[in-house]
Amino acid sequence: MAKTSEVIGYATGRATKADIVDAAFHVFAESGYGGTSVREIARRAGINHATLLHHFPQKSLLLQSVLEHRDELQHIDPTTLDETLALLLGIAVRNEETPGLTRLFTLLAAESADPDHPARAYFRERLARLRHQIAHHIELAQATGQVPADVHPEAAATDIVALWEGLQLQAPLSADPVSVSEHLATTFSALAGHTIEPMFLP
Amino acid sequence: MAKTSEVIGYATGRATKADIVDAAFHVFAESGYGGTSVREIARRAGINHATLLHHFPQKSLLLQSVLEHRDELQHIDPTTLDETLALLLGIAVRNEETPGLTRLFTLLAAESADPDHPARAYFRERLARLRHQIAHHIELAQATGQVPADVHPEAAATDIVALWEGLQLQAPLSADPVSVSEHLATTFSALAGHTIEPMFLP
Repeated sequence: MAKTSEVIGYATGRATKADIVDAAFHVFAESGYGGTSVREIARRAGINHATLLHHFPQKSLLLQSVLEHRDELQHIDPTTLDETLALLLGIAVRNEETPGLTRLFTLLAAESADPDHPARAYFRERLARLRHQIAHHIELAQATGQVPADVHPEAAATDIVALWEGLQLQAPLSADPVSVSEHLATTFSALAGHTIEPMFLP
Repeated sequence: MAKTSEVIGYATGRATKADIVDAAFHVFAESGYGGTSVREIARRAGINHATLLHHFPQKSLLLQSVLEHRDELQHIDPTTLDETLALLLGIAVRNEETPGLTRLFTLLAAESADPDHPARAYFRERLARLRHQIAHHIELAQATGQVPADVHPEAAATDIVALWEGLQLQAPLSADPVSVSEHLATTFSALAGHTIEPMFLP
């Protein structure tokens, strides 16, 4: 893939791939994948339609670029349960600071129930990886006695991811403010047996 | 509102309001609200566009009819925590039997993060009502000693709804089958202090 700072054509002004991906992010966040037109992304990026198609021949390639540039979950590789939970909590805090991005991920995950959705493979892999990481570190923590033996690692991992995603789905619809990270911190701390503080990726 | 069995026009054949709402349900479930065209709903219902517009002048009115006809949560009025949890579990079981409808609700809830979405008021009220019911019955159960005093009713209600909606969001994306109702039954039974079985609306 080309560098995101690459400038696209002299004739079209200063639009870079990063600008196009940024424009795509905003339009997807407003309209979802199905409701987004590539023309609108081109308009928002200040380039013409043909120029955009030259660089991103399909709408799905724009979506893939947005997901790959914006998903912090891709970059974590924790070594303990405490670190796993702390990193996830840090991402939840960041997500609260970027509600548009968080809503886009929720909307795309919901759309990806459709077997033909171009983000489906991405979300399936992301979910499997996240659940595997959490379950694996619960098992390791059970071996040291940190987590009780009657916790089912896979079921607990599924519930943690569901709680997180459900809170993110609910927060924009709630009359009373819902802090996703505070709710998660309570559940994470109960599982770890002590207070979990958010840890942030560099 | 007219009876759903009302037949629409002699000239257009046998399409009833119920047929149109049913066609709308299927198209919304496939494409979300933003991605759905009223023309496609008319085509699916086997009527012409003008006839459809005569009965549903706006796409949002079609959506409202779909939501009001399909949402079982509207019809519960439980009297105890056990009954609340049993009814919710019954709805979760039914939701697993109607995955298309469940996905539509998830997708529309995700879309409704947009302040201009026509289903936003509906989902906000639904969420507030559901959380209030659960929290209220947790409080009553605390008064009798069924639920420990250190459970925070509003926080627990928020987490229960989030867990449920997050499981429904996750299930279609999971490589391993996820039973939403089994996961909920575990959490509900832990809260109630004994096994909760699903109870079904008539």
